[in-house]
Amino acid sequence: MKHGMDSARIVTQGTDWLATLSPNARQVRESGIVEIFNAGRELDDLIPLWVGEGTQPTPAFIQDAAIASMRAGKTFYTYQRGIPPLRQALSDYLSDLYAKPVPAENVFVTGSGMQAIMLTCQLLLGAGDEMVVVSPVWPNIVEAAKINGAVPVCVPMDFDGEGWSIDPEKLLAAVTPRTRALFINSPGNPTGVVIDRETQSTILDFAREHGLWIIADEVYAKLVYNGAKAAPSFLDIATPDDRVIQVNSFSKNWAMTGWRIGWMVAPPALGQTIENLIQYNTSGVAHFMQDATAVALTEGDDFVQQTIAMCRRGRDLCVERLGRINRVIAGVPEGAFYYFFAVDGETDSRDLAFRLLKETSVGLAPGTAFGPGGERFLRLCFAADYDKLDEALGRLEKALR
Amino acid sequence: MKHGMDSARIVTQGTDWLATLSPNARQVRESGIVEIFNAGRELDDLIPLWVGEGTQPTPAFIQDAAIASMRAGKTFYTYQRGIPPLRQALSDYLSDLYAKPVPAENVFVTGSGMQAIMLTCQLLLGAGDEMVVVSPVWPNIVEAAKINGAVPVCVPMDFDGEGWSIDPEKLLAAVTPRTRALFINSPGNPTGVVIDRETQSTILDFAREHGLWIIADEVYAKLVYNGAKAAPSFLDIATPDDRVIQVNSFSKNWAMTGWRIGWMVAPPALGQTIENLIQYNTSGVAHFMQDATAVALTEGDDFVQQTIAMCRRGRDLCVERLGRINRVIAGVPEGAFYYFFAVDGETDSRDLAFRLLKETSVGLAPGTAFGPGGERFLRLCFAADYDKLDEALGRLEKALR
Repeated sequence: MKHGMDSARIVTQGTDWLATLSPNARQVRESGIVEIFNAGRELDDLIPLWVGEGTQPTPAFIQDAAIASMRAGKTFYTYQRGIPPLRQALSDYLSDLYAKPVPAENVFVTGSGMQAIMLTCQLLLGAGDEMVVVSPVWPNIVEAAKINGAVPVCVPMDFDGEGWSIDPEKLLAAVTPRTRALFINSPGNPTGVVIDRETQSTILDFAREHGLWIIADEVYAKLVYNGAKAAPSFLDIATPDDRVIQVNSFSKNWAMTGWRIGWMVAPPALGQTIENLIQYNTSGVAHFMQDATAVALTEGDDFVQQTIAMCRRGRDLCVERLGRINRVIAGVPEGAFYYFFAVDGETDSRDLAFRLLKETSVGLAPGTAFGPGGERFLRLCFAADYDKLDEALGRLEKALR
Repeated sequence: MKHGMDSARIVTQGTDWLATLSPNARQVRESGIVEIFNAGRELDDLIPLWVGEGTQPTPAFIQDAAIASMRAGKTFYTYQRGIPPLRQALSDYLSDLYAKPVPAENVFVTGSGMQAIMLTCQLLLGAGDEMVVVSPVWPNIVEAAKINGAVPVCVPMDFDGEGWSIDPEKLLAAVTPRTRALFINSPGNPTGVVIDRETQSTILDFAREHGLWIIADEVYAKLVYNGAKAAPSFLDIATPDDRVIQVNSFSKNWAMTGWRIGWMVAPPALGQTIENLIQYNTSGVAHFMQDATAVALTEGDDFVQQTIAMCRRGRDLCVERLGRINRVIAGVPEGAFYYFFAVDGETDSRDLAFRLLKETSVGLAPGTAFGPGGERFLRLCFAADYDKLDEALGRLEKALR
């Protein structure tokens, strides 16, 4: 139940097991999201809003495509960069979404958005290198950097009581001669921030000037609530010479969290190196899964629009029900599918999240999990069925008033 | 078509892309197996015997289990260490196979045997640490170590013209103060060697004495041709205090190469650290795939016995047809499913493999891919349908006579 690894726990039978491990593995911390998820996942009347997934299973038309492919015998080793039809489908999808075409040769299929991040860290970060990360942020990012011996440097966003914003000056001030990359997540998990075009341009100019990579985590690109087709992307403004890698996932748009499939967009000159890293990490993604995601891209727009509508309703419900509680401090999320709120008088969000879990059986993620700036907050995933969300909000209202 | 990365190839549009990458990523080499596979995979009359997979798709009863699970909505995030029923099924399976029980808490489900190796490298190897590897060996092992900044030290086995053997003295002589682990693969890919109990005991005693980890790659455990239930395993002789990790895969026994699912057996004291590493690499394996592999374990024995019989027949066919060619030098594989042979007068196996691909459209893996000791050899995977193997051997006989 304690946060992170406890060296006392790992000494058994006279062996100090921790001492036998690599320094990088030793310093990796348990995810503060997974910690509470593991503690409560078997509760009877649990409403789990702690992880970033909805309550609907993967839609039938995507399942059908996987099943047809499996039945057709697509169960063999396949292309390490992704099967050509999926890379082409991603190229078409992204070229439609953004201001510039994204060629298929720039697209690489990965075994989850998480793996896209890990591969990017392996690709760019050596021992002692620094990666500047805008926080609060999904905790897995800093840990992936640490596994590669790199040093994540978090720069907290500003919260003015109504919303989050990134100050490019503060970001750029964190850069040192050891900095190799800037990690920018927008729309933001957990904050719901959407970084505007002007800020992106400032950051890109700075990256060009200093030879830095930009890792653009744009997993929630389509989950914006201003009616736009997608959030502003670094792919809208980057040229082929720019050091920009987009990391992305099929999980959120198409209710495929459990499938573990994502992608990277990267300069094609890195293709052989990326292929090598895929080969030596997991050796590719199941062919029948890739066939299913190609169908998600070409036939999934209705489902995505329903998902966006459901998330918008969930967002509005959170703002209306929790936002009007005096003790609750939060803005209105512009993107992604999280309500990130502080509770006046509560300073330890981990303690609060475990307390609320016990009292209400509603599963929330503590802001302590998301690094500097998030300590006072709780994250609630509102991509849930109306009834479940309604019930969860009722329980929370009772506990928080 | 050239082996490995070519720094000239990566310079485009005025940017020296290679120089922007981490030193570990820069030094990773293309797999010599994947290289030829990529070069020839679209040939019309290709008989691909270069990678380690059979010609049969995954059997229907395993597909059925995956489909039923997917249809039941098992498409959400799940346990990072593997779902409890699969860990229990693995515990039962392994406890039956080996001389000592393997508790479920020692078992961790991974996104391929490859990932089990990568996770183990992350777990044990820091920058500059050495891992002693018995070679010829699957090339992915040394590259996984290099991605973590470690130094693989290959110790070639002896080949006496009839078979391969490992000299523990040579292995132990390669150990330095920087050595953290010994990587031992048996039954051996590509050599077919099966390491005997006495040699394993000698190695384990030495590892105990020097505080070294043993990474036991036992993917081909059941593919032995002496009638035994399994090859001798380090799990038969290790105690709970021993630093032994078994890496393993569902790929070979159950024709599931394309699924990307495997496991590790490790001391349970490392459980939290292993869970963290899984979280930050790929965040687990699809629930519906895990349900399918549980069925493979509990209901798959007939299929495994058929696979072993098919491989034995394939092995005997290779020995009979290629072994009687005067120029062919090879032993009789005791395990795994590869015929590893040299051709008198041919010194560059990469050149020979590409030449045979062009002349015969039979895909073989060059021994150059497998490190010290393998340079003169070619690897043929004989886990193929009789007709395809017969046809391939006919073409090779013609070309090699």
